[in-house]
Amino acid sequence: MSQVGILARPDLGEAGPTLRDLIRWLRERGVGVCLEERTAQLVQDLAPSCAVASGKEVVQQADALVVLGGDGTLLAASHVVQKPIPVLGVNFGSLGFLTEITLGELYPALEGVLAGTYRYEERRMLHAEVRRGGKAQSAGDVLNDVVITKAAFSRIIELDVAVDGAFVSSFRADGLIVSSPTGSTAYNLAAGGPILHPTLPAIVLTPICPHMLSNRPLVVGDGVTIEVSLRDARDGDVQITLDGQQGFPLAPRDVVTVTRSAHAIRLVKAPERDYFEILRTKLKWGEPTARR
Amino acid sequence: MSQVGILARPDLGEAGPTLRDLIRWLRERGVGVCLEERTAQLVQDLAPSCAVASGKEVVQQADALVVLGGDGTLLAASHVVQKPIPVLGVNFGSLGFLTEITLGELYPALEGVLAGTYRYEERRMLHAEVRRGGKAQSAGDVLNDVVITKAAFSRIIELDVAVDGAFVSSFRADGLIVSSPTGSTAYNLAAGGPILHPTLPAIVLTPICPHMLSNRPLVVGDGVTIEVSLRDARDGDVQITLDGQQGFPLAPRDVVTVTRSAHAIRLVKAPERDYFEILRTKLKWGEPTARR
Amino acid sequence: MSQVGILARPDLGEAGPTLRDLIRWLRERGVGVCLEERTAQLVQDLAPSCAVASGKEVVQQADALVVLGGDGTLLAASHVVQKPIPVLGVNFGSLGFLTEITLGELYPALEGVLAGTYRYEERRMLHAEVRRGGKAQSAGDVLNDVVITKAAFSRIIELDVAVDGAFVSSFRADGLIVSSPTGSTAYNLAAGGPILHPTLPAIVLTPICPHMLSNRPLVVGDGVTIEVSLRDARDGDVQITLDGQQGFPLAPRDVVTVTRSAHAIRLVKAPERDYFEILRTKLKWGEPTARR
Amino acid sequence: MSQVGILARPDLGEAGPTLRDLIRWLRERGVGVCLEERTAQLVQDLAPSCAVASGKEVVQQADALVVLGGDGTLLAASHVVQKPIPVLGVNFGSLGFLTEITLGELYPALEGVLAGTYRYEERRMLHAEVRRGGKAQSAGDVLNDVVITKAAFSRIIELDVAVDGAFVSSFRADGLIVSSPTGSTAYNLAAGGPILHPTLPAIVLTPICPHMLSNRPLVVGDGVTIEVSLRDARDGDVQITLDGQQGFPLAPRDVVTVTRSAHAIRLVKAPERDYFEILRTKLKWGEPTARR
Repeated sequence: MSQVGILARPDLGEAGPTLRDLIRWLRERGVGVCLEERTAQLVQDLAPSCAVASGKEVVQQADALVVLGGDGTLLAASHVVQKPIPVLGVNFGSLGFLTEITLGELYPALEGVLAGTYRYEERRMLHAEVRRGGKAQSAGDVLNDVVITKAAFSRIIELDVAVDGAFVSSFRADGLIVSSPTGSTAYNLAAGGPILHPTLPAIVLTPICPHMLSNRPLVVGDGVTIEVSLRDARDGDVQITLDGQQGFPLAPRDVVTVTRSAHAIRLVKAPERDYFEILRTKLKWGEPTARR
Repeated sequence: MSQVGILARPDLGEAGPTLRDLIRWLRERGVGVCLEERTAQLVQDLAPSCAVASGKEVVQQADALVVLGGDGTLLAASHVVQKPIPVLGVNFGSLGFLTEITLGELYPALEGVLAGTYRYEERRMLHAEVRRGGKAQSAGDVLNDVVITKAAFSRIIELDVAVDGAFVSSFRADGLIVSSPTGSTAYNLAAGGPILHPTLPAIVLTPICPHMLSNRPLVVGDGVTIEVSLRDARDGDVQITLDGQQGFPLAPRDVVTVTRSAHAIRLVKAPERDYFEILRTKLKWGEPTARR
Repeated sequence: MSQVGILARPDLGEAGPTLRDLIRWLRERGVGVCLEERTAQLVQDLAPSCAVASGKEVVQQADALVVLGGDGTLLAASHVVQKPIPVLGVNFGSLGFLTEITLGELYPALEGVLAGTYRYEERRMLHAEVRRGGKAQSAGDVLNDVVITKAAFSRIIELDVAVDGAFVSSFRADGLIVSSPTGSTAYNLAAGGPILHPTLPAIVLTPICPHMLSNRPLVVGDGVTIEVSLRDARDGDVQITLDGQQGFPLAPRDVVTVTRSAHAIRLVKAPERDYFEILRTKLKWGEPTARR
Repeated sequence: MSQVGILARPDLGEAGPTLRDLIRWLRERGVGVCLEERTAQLVQDLAPSCAVASGKEVVQQADALVVLGGDGTLLAASHVVQKPIPVLGVNFGSLGFLTEITLGELYPALEGVLAGTYRYEERRMLHAEVRRGGKAQSAGDVLNDVVITKAAFSRIIELDVAVDGAFVSSFRADGLIVSSPTGSTAYNLAAGGPILHPTLPAIVLTPICPHMLSNRPLVVGDGVTIEVSLRDARDGDVQITLDGQQGFPLAPRDVVTVTRSAHAIRLVKAPERDYFEILRTKLKWGEPTARR
């Protein structure tokens, strides 16, 4: 472990003191520090003594990555992490599904990473591709979800879904969420989808406000190829969104293909916290009683 | 009953023969006919012998209105019907929630209207108003619903809802549907809302994909004033849609007010069909068994 | 206001001091006190100086009723309140939907009742009747709900539902909840039903785990007659429960009729609390932000 | 393939002709026939020339099993199939999720089985065990689901759930369904659970009418140990049901353990039908349009 990359939410001014502490802590242990460009601006005086690079380059150089912010920051970071390095998601504020390490747990967790004794979860990503007239148009990896939705003023869209070439159903709905287990607690949950344990090798397809009331979320293995075909629609009526962060319009008869990505995020676990504790805290689920 | 107005879906070429029959049938009974402008284009040769006018004028002149098309056509017609005349919704195609009269039932139903012996349901409309900086910006009546939603690429919006000045809840969601009983079987149902009998003096508020899982549809009396206030949002992030047909963007801190409209639609019932039969047919609900 | 009745949850030992205070407070104001029998046992030394009677008799003699306990206690009390006297539901523990007055609010609320200046909500009850072979078998009033469910080991039951003689649907389900607006936040909510404002003149029918996925909660006006007919079932397979407190088995071909009851409960409001505040507290709904 | 076992729904009188044909067809191909005892009574004249045995013995002797009836019959059969032989589920009546082979497809499917060229799905079963005071009380395998529910007149039960020793949540609900992927389209679906592709190595936990509205179905890998602990409850208040067919009461503080079973059912696929077609037919999902 010779170099640790650090990436903070760009507008997280309050991260300054933590960044300073963290850089000092790493140097004291002989570990190099590589700051993402906008992160470096939060500690401009220290930046000269660190490597400073784009997010992609930080990941290339680093043996571990610390992300300071919230789930959105980690989601963005996941799109540039293309190798299996440990990623520590540190939340500034409330506990996150992805940023489950609190500030108080940062150094114990980092010690585990330096010592190679950390616990982690391999979070599989999904790969989305848009084909137009048989030609691949664009592609991207997501940690949470690929969402195909109606645009602003259109009322409903029609999608044909196939899994490994077998027709599943036509959906008349506001849209369709294709979510990883990690994403199952995000938009999928709001749309009525189930919670998938993050290590389950599965993908969940959840219609958004389906017109046909018997349409239900469908969980399939993550080894399949999912094809979502747009019916005839007016231009501009349908769009695709990746991880809720990047979006672009789809054209009539476009086909969106979703498969398991070649990449996964190696998310470092907080020393004393399991997945269900996060679930209980975030969803305000019941705690065991004293009687237990 | 001296004049009947007729309004057809503009692109409903197949309505021609029905229109001809209907015009002849009415004339034979000494009833004048007033055609909506685009409807007149479907029977250009007959049009000269009828009054032809805009939708609004047709309603002003007519003692009854026949709408040929589907629920969308009747929804559009409802926006210009500002007086309590009987409205016959005749479906071309599958049975509608609003256009419940089949072609075969058209003349028996019309006979009832001419004789003044028809059954009808008074469908209350809702009135929506947008206030910006305390000033009324725009307003409209809806038969189905007022929908406030996020725009294309935004992920979630925040709304504060109050009923008669009492704060109800903050909603973080894709949007909020404020629906009449008539609209309860439209978008509201897809979003998980309940079915309200069309004559119930009520309004239902249904969040769309609420982030807070305990948010549920809320049914209130229709004598209240509902206020939906936008939290700080970026311009263009939120829009309002009236009956799924007219929409425009909202600005941060806009307040949408919904009340019962002064108008109602007097929807003529098919001679032999009750509301629950339509519900069963449209939602594929269970029929009674022979044993019954 | 010459006499106030008091009824406490029988096992609520901790109510002793409150009872003593309350009795003294009422006497100081020249108001007579009538204790329900088991309530009297909680303050045996004071009981001789009060009238002591059964619940029904307490209500007959009293001009107002104070209920100490939780929602279950008030539910039980509602079954004996057959006249429109103000009822104060005082919660010992967490805020209730029915017992919304806290101990700290008891005396301000009582002062309002004595002065005749209190705010209240008229909560309509429902009346259930079971007919077997055309003969009325049993009947009762409920404040929350009439629930028809499968018994322990049966898997599903079949019910035909009619409203004012019009067939609605056959339900294959675990059961059916017929709920008042007051009951809409009880079992109905757990089964996926909507929240009805307590003053709405409506009844909601919510299927429990319906086999047909398009079956949805249905809200009708409270002036109707609801008939639920059992299909052929084995004896002992189906039961009816009133307000979750009283239950008995139904026989094949029994018909359960539900209508609005002649009785209503005049529930005294806490001085400074509206319905939506209770909803937010109980369902952990969102509070407005400071920005508002 | 020297012997085929046959098991029919005991009261399926109409199966007689099919049974006769089937026995003749198998004999013509030199294959022995073993009839389950009650099945033999449906063709008493032919029975002497076949082996006749209990369900368990039929399975022990047979190299393949034909089940005639519906999903309930196949569910019952699954409880005695303890070895990986091909099982053909033939439906008499409507298409089943488990009995997907129609009468017309029986012989083509059987030819495939005899030739060893059939397609099948390995349907994993679950194993349930009840421990009382640390001692195993009873155990069983299920193809669909283990259901823990409140008994007739109790209103709600409290359960603590743990996965691999990690506490998940306390559930206050009518009950909890622990379902295999195969069972996901049964009771789980009625309770709001998701559909799991039958080959997914997963288990879904779905609360029935949960009191806490944020409780949602949870999908976990099938390699885990699920423990459901009863809180203090009155005797007779809670029961467990296996595949909806066998049930018995639970006692306070009982612990139900569910794991993947050592057994699986090798379900023969209809020659020309995939899982999604069954789903579409059974749930009345949308078909592709002609345009596709």
